[in-house]
Amino acid sequence: MKRIFDVRPWHVTTTDWNPANKRLQESMTSLGNGNLGMRGFFEEQYTGDTLPGIYLGGVWFPDKTRVGWWKNGYPKYFGKVINAINFMATDIKINGESVDLAHDQISDFKLDLDMQQSVLTRTVTVHKNDATVQLVFERFISAAQKELVVQRITANNIGDTAATIEIASAVDANVVNEDANYDETFWNVLTTNADQQQATVVAITKENNFGTPRFTVGTQATVKTDLDAVQHEQTDTKAVNDFKGQLAAGAHTVFEKRTIIVTSRDYASQAELEQQMVKLSQQVAQESYDQLFAAHRNVWAARWEKSDVQINGDDAAQQGIRFNLFQLFSTYYGEDSRLNIGPKGFTGEKYGGATYWDTEAFAVPVYLGITDPSVTRNLLMYRYQQLDGAFHNAREQGLKGALYPMVTFDGIESHNEWEITFEEIHRNGDIAFAIYNYTRYTGDESYVLNEGSRVLTEMSRFWADRVHFSKRNHKYMIHGVTGPDEYENNVDNNWYTNYLAQWTLKYTLATVAKVTPAVAAKLQVTEQEKQQWQDIVDRMYLPEDKELGIFVQHDGFLDKDIEPVSSIPADELPINQHWSWDKILRSPYIKQGDVLQGVWDFIDDFTPEQKKRNFDFYEPLTVHESSLSAAIHSVLAADLKYEKQAVEMYERTSRLDLDNYNNDTDDGLHITSMTGGWLAIVQGFAGMRVRDGQLHFAPFLPQKWDSYQFRQLFRGRIIKVKVDQNGTQISLLSGEPLTIDLAGDQVKLTK
Amino acid sequence: MKRIFDVRPWHVTTTDWNPANKRLQESMTSLGNGNLGMRGFFEEQYTGDTLPGIYLGGVWFPDKTRVGWWKNGYPKYFGKVINAINFMATDIKINGESVDLAHDQISDFKLDLDMQQSVLTRTVTVHKNDATVQLVFERFISAAQKELVVQRITANNIGDTAATIEIASAVDANVVNEDANYDETFWNVLTTNADQQQATVVAITKENNFGTPRFTVGTQATVKTDLDAVQHEQTDTKAVNDFKGQLAAGAHTVFEKRTIIVTSRDYASQAELEQQMVKLSQQVAQESYDQLFAAHRNVWAARWEKSDVQINGDDAAQQGIRFNLFQLFSTYYGEDSRLNIGPKGFTGEKYGGATYWDTEAFAVPVYLGITDPSVTRNLLMYRYQQLDGAFHNAREQGLKGALYPMVTFDGIESHNEWEITFEEIHRNGDIAFAIYNYTRYTGDESYVLNEGSRVLTEMSRFWADRVHFSKRNHKYMIHGVTGPDEYENNVDNNWYTNYLAQWTLKYTLATVAKVTPAVAAKLQVTEQEKQQWQDIVDRMYLPEDKELGIFVQHDGFLDKDIEPVSSIPADELPINQHWSWDKILRSPYIKQGDVLQGVWDFIDDFTPEQKKRNFDFYEPLTVHESSLSAAIHSVLAADLKYEKQAVEMYERTSRLDLDNYNNDTDDGLHITSMTGGWLAIVQGFAGMRVRDGQLHFAPFLPQKWDSYQFRQLFRGRIIKVKVDQNGTQISLLSGEPLTIDLAGDQVKLTK
Repeated sequence: MKRIFDVRPWHVTTTDWNPANKRLQESMTSLGNGNLGMRGFFEEQYTGDTLPGIYLGGVWFPDKTRVGWWKNGYPKYFGKVINAINFMATDIKINGESVDLAHDQISDFKLDLDMQQSVLTRTVTVHKNDATVQLVFERFISAAQKELVVQRITANNIGDTAATIEIASAVDANVVNEDANYDETFWNVLTTNADQQQATVVAITKENNFGTPRFTVGTQATVKTDLDAVQHEQTDTKAVNDFKGQLAAGAHTVFEKRTIIVTSRDYASQAELEQQMVKLSQQVAQESYDQLFAAHRNVWAARWEKSDVQINGDDAAQQGIRFNLFQLFSTYYGEDSRLNIGPKGFTGEKYGGATYWDTEAFAVPVYLGITDPSVTRNLLMYRYQQLDGAFHNAREQGLKGALYPMVTFDGIESHNEWEITFEEIHRNGDIAFAIYNYTRYTGDESYVLNEGSRVLTEMSRFWADRVHFSKRNHKYMIHGVTGPDEYENNVDNNWYTNYLAQWTLKYTLATVAKVTPAVAAKLQVTEQEKQQWQDIVDRMYLPEDKELGIFVQHDGFLDKDIEPVSSIPADELPINQHWSWDKILRSPYIKQGDVLQGVWDFIDDFTPEQKKRNFDFYEPLTVHESSLSAAIHSVLAADLKYEKQAVEMYERTSRLDLDNYNNDTDDGLHITSMTGGWLAIVQGFAGMRVRDGQLHFAPFLPQKWDSYQFRQLFRGRIIKVKVDQNGTQISLLSGEPLTIDLAGDQVKLTK
Repeated sequence: MKRIFDVRPWHVTTTDWNPANKRLQESMTSLGNGNLGMRGFFEEQYTGDTLPGIYLGGVWFPDKTRVGWWKNGYPKYFGKVINAINFMATDIKINGESVDLAHDQISDFKLDLDMQQSVLTRTVTVHKNDATVQLVFERFISAAQKELVVQRITANNIGDTAATIEIASAVDANVVNEDANYDETFWNVLTTNADQQQATVVAITKENNFGTPRFTVGTQATVKTDLDAVQHEQTDTKAVNDFKGQLAAGAHTVFEKRTIIVTSRDYASQAELEQQMVKLSQQVAQESYDQLFAAHRNVWAARWEKSDVQINGDDAAQQGIRFNLFQLFSTYYGEDSRLNIGPKGFTGEKYGGATYWDTEAFAVPVYLGITDPSVTRNLLMYRYQQLDGAFHNAREQGLKGALYPMVTFDGIESHNEWEITFEEIHRNGDIAFAIYNYTRYTGDESYVLNEGSRVLTEMSRFWADRVHFSKRNHKYMIHGVTGPDEYENNVDNNWYTNYLAQWTLKYTLATVAKVTPAVAAKLQVTEQEKQQWQDIVDRMYLPEDKELGIFVQHDGFLDKDIEPVSSIPADELPINQHWSWDKILRSPYIKQGDVLQGVWDFIDDFTPEQKKRNFDFYEPLTVHESSLSAAIHSVLAADLKYEKQAVEMYERTSRLDLDNYNNDTDDGLHITSMTGGWLAIVQGFAGMRVRDGQLHFAPFLPQKWDSYQFRQLFRGRIIKVKVDQNGTQISLLSGEPLTIDLAGDQVKLTK
């Protein structure tokens, strides 16, 4: 655990400047608006180790798949997020010498991320060439205008003598990707242009060998300053505006920069793209910094209005959940159904910025609770729109129907480990479950009975082809899979996968029975198919151990040498850093819940005894070496009244990055794991469930907390749930009256 | 099937010149002497597609392991064979223009590999620039002098007018590897030197990042010719001698080149290496071509004396078995215990030229029968000398004892697929079995009771740590393995692996009980270890199906959808070229014998009924997509009196490359599969077994053959076995009288 920021309810703040923590700091102070995002890198020159990453949603490059030994069926390309044109770059000179915190003598450093307003502020006093200048950097990525990033730099001459200040502001296409097969760059510059107050670069992603679209990006920065414009120039790869001025002792100067970034995702032609870029630049130039900021802040205020969680008596826990929701919203707020939630969002390059099953399994339940249904619906639409890719993936494996990818930008699989790419197919059930989850929570059947029925039908066609009938067991089986526990590969009859496949077929049959004749005509599900699906539902093999009273993770699991995690010597943890892969595989240790993932998904389908037996058996074998693991164990522990364990797991998930638990936050934040804190509090501590269209709660208060409260959207209402030592108060903040179930009592909420 | 050479008993010959078959032709006309070898590429300039490969035994480069996703425990480097300094290169000009068969008008082409004498001859008439010149190229790699390669080029002016002939002969370090991560080269040249008749290049393999030794190679070519020396030059990378002469109509000229190749494997310092190179060059310069050739041919004659197999009535079969033995002997004849038998020998770069378990499983039984015991003993010594590497490999997996590598040059694992590297551990039993096989066949216990006991003990320590005790089954199990059937990965309780592990422990216990006190003191096997090993032997789990009467390939195998290979549509075969990897894995189809590999190894341990049931069950599921598969199935079919099937399998294995069955012989020959023909004839058709120190035979004659005969070494004797329609004649060619078992009768052989 490494905590480099102060614990404050709405802020992530530090006054400590340590270059060794630079990348970690950058990850943690990332900003985003769903459309684009950036790490909290310094805008001015910095010669130390840094990852100045800016990433644009949906702008990516298909790089050649790199493997040791090729396997039939491997995808040809691996999609990767590419670092965008750097429009933040500035070179600040004091008395002729560039500010560079890797070397400068400084004082009064303060870095502050305001999560309520989504603004990053940095203050630092630089002592340089006989001058003492305080610099204040502010930046926000507008939540009100998706193409807009605003910067403000204030220089206060707090020394005794006058000082010269120069600011060279650039838009620079010469950027480096950390994630590259070789040291190649990914941008071809189309035009660069600089005039007195503007710098523009239009670039296109370089040609690729896979026929996927290239992306054109226009980036135009407009500067406002009372410094004198001394020079402007454009080179092959960048456009620069130079300003200079003399600052008397005690005087200050303000430098503002508004950058508009437009992409060919939104505009058909380069001409139109450039036209819009210019138009938007002109619009934002007419508004003051304060006006632009107010519009941005108001959007965030509305988000928090629906979603804020307050914890009294535990500031670390309070900061944790706010940081979680802040980073989720920065990554995705449902404005664009072509975008999704990458495991690292816009905060790093690992996992290629692509879409994983994390979205459906972990993010959907959270967004359902705290955003309008349209936000989640767009996540469902994303998959519908990528159905062609899913057909392609199934075809590559010689199978019918649709197989959604493990990793993708465009629907086509782009991961290349056979045991994952080909085998971690439970994703095709998680995506089905998300449709059900949305429908159950919102009561809105319009998706499932239209687009959703198509997605379900094609996934069911896949499952029906992927199972095989074992003649000797008279059962359908699924061989050769990897479950959520990726510390087992290529197993037979993973309970979770088999259960989900069976459930998907059942849900599809029920859905198909309800669609309109027009939709049915499109689906073309034959009677024979329905019979086959029903037969699979009826005769699916689900490994169980009657004696232990548990579902068995997969066929061979109970033959292992089963000893609890507590028997592993401490210096061998985490096992993924200490054990050879084969040892991990044949061990009984579970990376993240597998059977328990299923018990969580279908928590109301099992008896308390079943839940308890499975939790008591599997949790002690679980090493929680996936950032997604703790949350569902917290919810299940709460369900079983294991309150201490539930709270421990909450702490682990909600402050995973703030405390750098996994020692890898310098690479970027664990965005999809940001869902864990909310799940633990709302589903766990408050026991929130939706049963037959009704909200249920059964809250408890963690011992060390004084109280907690959260807001929740449900079918047109916003309700507030407050839990303290006196019990639970649930109030209706907006919307029609609603009857809920509180620990078994029917409670009618009115305003 | 593609047959590009004529069927002749002792020759591989063609008069057909087709550039499309160039690489295939090169593979098939490879030569070698165990120490070095080369493909049958043209020595003169050739601008078409070609792989001019020369490879030196034990000279390799550790290249950075290339993977998609790193797994803990992966080896850091992948060893690869590197193409040696090209000393064959010549540029032949006729009337000023280079001969280049990619473009020239030619006639009377003939390419002939004489397998009896191991010499490659090519004749071609070139019509060029008003001249008609017949060129005759001869080459052999001396079996008598391991550092020597001899070339002779004869130019006959068969045209009507005089012609100018120029021959530029080079030693050239600027060679390309097909197997390279990038397009890098692997040689740093130390010196080049040319004088009137000699060209010398001394080079060292480039630096590597893994601390493995670099190799220095000295290559010195000495030319004899009656052409005029016109020029000699050395550049940074090569040394060239130029000769020229006028050839009257009807006249001819002879150009001879003797190249000596010495390596730092044999000489400690560069100075000594160069000294020896010069000394050897001087020695061979004093002998005539005929003298050098006679010495070489005599070695080959002695080899054939002990090993020749004659088949009457089926020339294709005859050519097949001779080609098999010829290529095996070219690759390995036991002179150097630091060398081994790469799957492609010196004939290509695939599989990196490294050592696999093929050696112990397939080559050892053949070499035992047809070479002096010392040849096989050196294969055993190879593993003993690499014990440190095997310790390293086990340690990397967190396990005790020694794990021999899947792929290696130096004993250290250099393969990088987790399902193979970490899991195909049956190799650690195959190596034990080879020790037993040697001892059983030769009666020589000196290896097993000394070096062998060390190897066995350390492998048993590995097995004892690698098994786990399943509390619920009260059995020892081995989870997470890949058997010989690589179309299954990461399975539990592969019968073959479990059986071999159990057998290895048993054999080690028996061996340890027999060693001298001095050896025992070195082994330090404790009583506790012995008890543990015995307990594992007693309680090893061996999956069986009583109802089917078969051993079960692994735990889940019988749950599959089991349909015979004959049910696969023809256009989907071979499945490894048509099916996605996951489909192959969950199919019941077997790449090469797995349970049947064990039945073959321990053929006398099973009842006829057991053998029949297992063969009848598994063979129909076997796709034989490994070149190693057909031979053992031929032997087992013969054992079961399935004569037709035995002969079919013989044909498939013995002419695999001659008929390019797998359509990949252009990459190089399947050297370790060259063992299959002999196994099929001797173990299969002739039913040869060694039981309690006695040779047994139970021959049958394939229907379409008139007769077959083979020679066999056994405990100081050479015997000849002849089988024809009248029965079997066994005669003693040399050595003391011997009693053998012929189909149940004791027969005493005397000279």
